[in-house]
Amino acid sequence: MTNPTSNNKAIVLVSGGLDSATCLALAVARGYQCYALSFNYGQRSSSELDAAQRLVSGSAVVEHKIIDLNMGEIGGSALTDSKIAVPEQETEGIPVTYVPARNTVFLSYALAWAEVVDASAIYIGVNALDYSGYPDCRPEYIAAFQQVVNLATKSSVEGKHIQLETPLIALSKAEIINTGIRLGVDYSITVSCYQADAQGRACGRCDSCRFRKKGFIDAGVEDPTRYQ
Amino acid sequence: MTNPTSNNKAIVLVSGGLDSATCLALAVARGYQCYALSFNYGQRSSSELDAAQRLVSGSAVVEHKIIDLNMGEIGGSALTDSKIAVPEQETEGIPVTYVPARNTVFLSYALAWAEVVDASAIYIGVNALDYSGYPDCRPEYIAAFQQVVNLATKSSVEGKHIQLETPLIALSKAEIINTGIRLGVDYSITVSCYQADAQGRACGRCDSCRFRKKGFIDAGVEDPTRYQ
Repeated sequence: MTNPTSNNKAIVLVSGGLDSATCLALAVARGYQCYALSFNYGQRSSSELDAAQRLVSGSAVVEHKIIDLNMGEIGGSALTDSKIAVPEQETEGIPVTYVPARNTVFLSYALAWAEVVDASAIYIGVNALDYSGYPDCRPEYIAAFQQVVNLATKSSVEGKHIQLETPLIALSKAEIINTGIRLGVDYSITVSCYQADAQGRACGRCDSCRFRKKGFIDAGVEDPTRYQ
Repeated sequence: MTNPTSNNKAIVLVSGGLDSATCLALAVARGYQCYALSFNYGQRSSSELDAAQRLVSGSAVVEHKIIDLNMGEIGGSALTDSKIAVPEQETEGIPVTYVPARNTVFLSYALAWAEVVDASAIYIGVNALDYSGYPDCRPEYIAAFQQVVNLATKSSVEGKHIQLETPLIALSKAEIINTGIRLGVDYSITVSCYQADAQGRACGRCDSCRFRKKGFIDAGVEDPTRYQ
């Protein structure tokens, strides 16, 4: 964890889900001036972005940008291509909801904005325990991207450091939920479902719903999720 | 250089400038089925993209995508922010034409598309010799991004390799020009200028124009650039 007193700005990736809501609350609690960054990447569920906006407007953030990524043009995922169905049972290997290079694209924009506002940290709520097995959530991937951050920018050449912060990476879903509850996160406004309806109500059956549901049970916290 | 016979698809980043034109010609000459990728990133000169389209339409490429990046929303560069002037004299250090994290964003999209079409290579015409000193053109930066490529994707987990190819990285501008001439590149349709006019005519004074001009002189090749 970097020391936020020397330069206390952080870019925080906010998808509108449970993990990024907790991540944002942690960055705020650590004293960062937070710049929230969300993406419209052609995901099926636009209610995820509505949730991001509600989350951010309830937090002490300096600015919130929602950037259109046009990743649907590239395709290759059930989340951005309506012709591929979201699976509702556990599947072998990496599921079709994987979006090619998604976190790499997200982190690239976060890096650009971090350099422009002179932030010293980028917060991303990746989690490598109760997750769908996406390769770009693993610690070794984050370490590789940190190396890119250390070399890519003008500010890195000038000796400034930007730290990738992944405070949830080794936590269970239940631990993430307990952390958020302690920090006052209102999980009822977050949307984790891969196929939530326009009102943000979850299907209760996709991978993401299953991990979230089990997390609330394991945490011994009442599940505030609105189901369809 | 990867062997294009096993899987002969390559993503080629095509900006419309001299370097990327040469890079595309090299990838075609090496037998790759080329997928050309250009970006509208809020650059001042839209004639650069017109040049990219002319270049690609004159080459044997499978497909050409031009993706809107909305990097102007992030700002921080003379190339994307009309309030910052393009310098016309040599300056100390990294110039204001540097676009924060530009190549990281470009390569992220290239990686996503490479995974979707199952390409084995990504060609990028970075050059660390006759260049403006951008940090994301250096060999150590490319090596770091290769490591991200090796870990980021579903296909990497499944054992497939995508190679970042930077055939121009150690060449002088004159060597790049001589390579392109040998491969039949028509440099008269390329636009390198940071502030070309709507007809694609170059200013002749910015960093990029100076490197290009000197390249033609050093190569002993008549400069076909159209100046304002």
